[in-house]
Amino acid sequence: MNDGIRASSAERIATAMLARLAEAPVGSRLPSTRAIAAEFSASPVTVQRALRLLESRGRVEVRPGDGTFVLGQPAARPTDRSWQTASLPVPAAVLDPTPAALAEAPGDAIALHAGYPSGDLLPERLVRTALVRAARGRAALVRSSVAGDPGLRDWFAAELRRTAGAGSATPSAHDVMITAGSQAGLHAVIAAVAPGSPVVVESPTYWGALLALHSVGARVIPVPSGPSGPDPADVERAILSSGARVFYAQPTFANPSGVSWSASTRERVLQIVRQHGAFLLEDDWAHDFGIDAAARPLAATDDSGHIVYLRSLTKVVSPAIRVAAVVARGPVRDRILARLSAEAMYVSPLLQAAALDVVTSPGWQVHLRALPRLLRARRDQLIVSVRAGAPSAHITSVPGGGLNLWIQLPDGVSASAVTASARAGGLLLADGASWFPSEQPGQFLRLNYADSATDRYDEAARILAAAIEDARPTS
Amino acid sequence: MNDGIRASSAERIATAMLARLAEAPVGSRLPSTRAIAAEFSASPVTVQRALRLLESRGRVEVRPGDGTFVLGQPAARPTDRSWQTASLPVPAAVLDPTPAALAEAPGDAIALHAGYPSGDLLPERLVRTALVRAARGRAALVRSSVAGDPGLRDWFAAELRRTAGAGSATPSAHDVMITAGSQAGLHAVIAAVAPGSPVVVESPTYWGALLALHSVGARVIPVPSGPSGPDPADVERAILSSGARVFYAQPTFANPSGVSWSASTRERVLQIVRQHGAFLLEDDWAHDFGIDAAARPLAATDDSGHIVYLRSLTKVVSPAIRVAAVVARGPVRDRILARLSAEAMYVSPLLQAAALDVVTSPGWQVHLRALPRLLRARRDQLIVSVRAGAPSAHITSVPGGGLNLWIQLPDGVSASAVTASARAGGLLLADGASWFPSEQPGQFLRLNYADSATDRYDEAARILAAAIEDARPTS
Repeated sequence: MNDGIRASSAERIATAMLARLAEAPVGSRLPSTRAIAAEFSASPVTVQRALRLLESRGRVEVRPGDGTFVLGQPAARPTDRSWQTASLPVPAAVLDPTPAALAEAPGDAIALHAGYPSGDLLPERLVRTALVRAARGRAALVRSSVAGDPGLRDWFAAELRRTAGAGSATPSAHDVMITAGSQAGLHAVIAAVAPGSPVVVESPTYWGALLALHSVGARVIPVPSGPSGPDPADVERAILSSGARVFYAQPTFANPSGVSWSASTRERVLQIVRQHGAFLLEDDWAHDFGIDAAARPLAATDDSGHIVYLRSLTKVVSPAIRVAAVVARGPVRDRILARLSAEAMYVSPLLQAAALDVVTSPGWQVHLRALPRLLRARRDQLIVSVRAGAPSAHITSVPGGGLNLWIQLPDGVSASAVTASARAGGLLLADGASWFPSEQPGQFLRLNYADSATDRYDEAARILAAAIEDARPTS
Repeated sequence: MNDGIRASSAERIATAMLARLAEAPVGSRLPSTRAIAAEFSASPVTVQRALRLLESRGRVEVRPGDGTFVLGQPAARPTDRSWQTASLPVPAAVLDPTPAALAEAPGDAIALHAGYPSGDLLPERLVRTALVRAARGRAALVRSSVAGDPGLRDWFAAELRRTAGAGSATPSAHDVMITAGSQAGLHAVIAAVAPGSPVVVESPTYWGALLALHSVGARVIPVPSGPSGPDPADVERAILSSGARVFYAQPTFANPSGVSWSASTRERVLQIVRQHGAFLLEDDWAHDFGIDAAARPLAATDDSGHIVYLRSLTKVVSPAIRVAAVVARGPVRDRILARLSAEAMYVSPLLQAAALDVVTSPGWQVHLRALPRLLRARRDQLIVSVRAGAPSAHITSVPGGGLNLWIQLPDGVSASAVTASARAGGLLLADGASWFPSEQPGQFLRLNYADSATDRYDEAARILAAAIEDARPTS
């Protein structure tokens, strides 16, 4: 029997009965499970499941041995909870919990706003097989240590070793800590190394990092990032003038711009953090999304403990497999581990087992080899469509990897106006404002080319062009 | 084919080959996959998996099309990372990331130290079925909203409604936020409402709460807890003298003591937090572990937003299903949601789907009905064994629910000495020190009766008695 179908049968019956409950007198008894089962041609177990769903929504009460009874709609009396205003601390920054990139897409819209690849870029068969295997194994019923599964930590360490320079003392499983996705890792690292302290960031930079920085009261010090990354002189100046001990960055296929640091920038920044006793928090978010080149983490070239490295499997394996790793060496590792204990205790061993199963299966290498070609086709098609259909949308650079095009709008055209107008036309875009820690030097949009099919890119470009014209200032 | 067995075959082959690799010259080539498969009577896929495991441990290098080669042991040169000492902030409190209750148990020891129920108290069949179903459904490949799955949030709200007083505006799904286990929820709530602020706690109290409090720089204000909970006058004095706006507590089957608040204490504390504009953070950790009575959350009796409620499914469904809920009403709900976004982004929809499937299946009610009897048998047997075999270990009270006995040692006998001595004798105990926010008023041990079989309780009591005698001060 297909269990997915069984679950939705219960949902279907519950929905059908909801309409009926609206008409029924409060306190009246529903027909028996058997009668409902006959009416819907369903099994009694499915009907019981449907009744539980209705119960969980507060619409019926199940009295075992007695029957199922219709409840009234919950009272809608508003409650005064204004006293909380005086009892909550006033935050340094009000955090926006639902940024553009996490918005839900309406059914038929063209979705270029999100931060994830579409389902057909995921290794679906490997994921489902691994999860089923994990569900049947030991990992389904046990807890994990705080640091995580030794085999998975080994794997993350080995991934860094593969690109390590000769002579480096390469990281080992000891240096690796598993986190429930990269946001949890990012937050724990920042809370460990820079609570209430200055932290240098690229501008633009990942909005989730800004969220984590604000949430621990860090003071954000932005440096502009150009086509080959930030100017190392800017980074050094920012560190010296602020006293920052941490530089958060995405040196490879940065989100949102797609930029990768040049070789000389990589080398100089590493020198600078070493010289000034600072940490480089390297967020290798797009490690497996290289198109024109493969990612080469800086963390593989450093054994002095100056790089704290972050890599996630969530985007490339499955959004449901919330598994990432922090690699850190020296006392900072213990500090981060203590934070992870306080913030999360441990990560589901089931998800850890499934993640390890996927990335050590022979099919994983096959999947990874196919990915650049698929991403390249989408990236190139979106570039062609935008250049042809919306030539006033300036593509800042062709990303060598990652999932996004970063677009600058004509002077005077507001990204929020374009986003709203495009949305009305059936195209979802992400307003670039989310990625800026301070005032924007222009108006930007982020277009994700990995979350939708290429056959609608021409249409998307047409809607974008019209939205830009709508938003032009009337002179 | 049984996948659990297949996975462990690869592990077995990898282990066998590890010994061989220690003897092999660095750079030499391993036999072909086919030859290894023949030797171990395994499939080529299993051998490839074993080779990937060895590769992930840095012991071999797989060169596709060429063969698999033996790598040298990694160099063991120590690295100087002392510079980090000057670059990390000095924490207000050094957090211990691996408290007693999370220690791994050696194979044949009697384990009374941990905080989880043993596997035979878990609804194993329901968990595995739900996980397999989720692995085959939509939830395996998508992300979740920050607040979590609407159906699961409905269910948590309905659970509170079941015990709600008449006339209360009962909580709805809107008020519920899903977190990756209760520690993540606890941390987000404390970070939202009391960063760097005074927080009143019971003493003793859950060590994970102390960890979260210290990690956000809260100032911990302890009040002693007696056989019917804390004295409300103490709570009021602590709130008034410190200016605390938060009281963290476990009113039902408290960890570690097993104590439940009396009806008058419940009523008075609720009055006090209302009167002083404070939040009661109610940690209903043992909701499903009632023995002599069922848990009745205070949160069900309050609609003024003064109670922030925390309930986890991790211990009762499966430690691998890291799913808990925070229920909060009013502005504090938005504040907590923003923290969850910054700290975790979202919880795996696969785990959420599996959790909802388990708790809405007909078998769940059957499981819950059986649990009190099983827990009672273990609790009572441990009490009988301790009273008979280790009469100098004073059982502070018979817990009406939860998983633990809280034991006070004779004056002058150190809990850490008893714990060390018992460990040498094959009995694992948790030193009560972890549960105290400040100096202990005596020496205590926590004994978990849910994590091991009753047939070894007499033996455990004998080892405990001998350890106490060992630890008595020589006069």
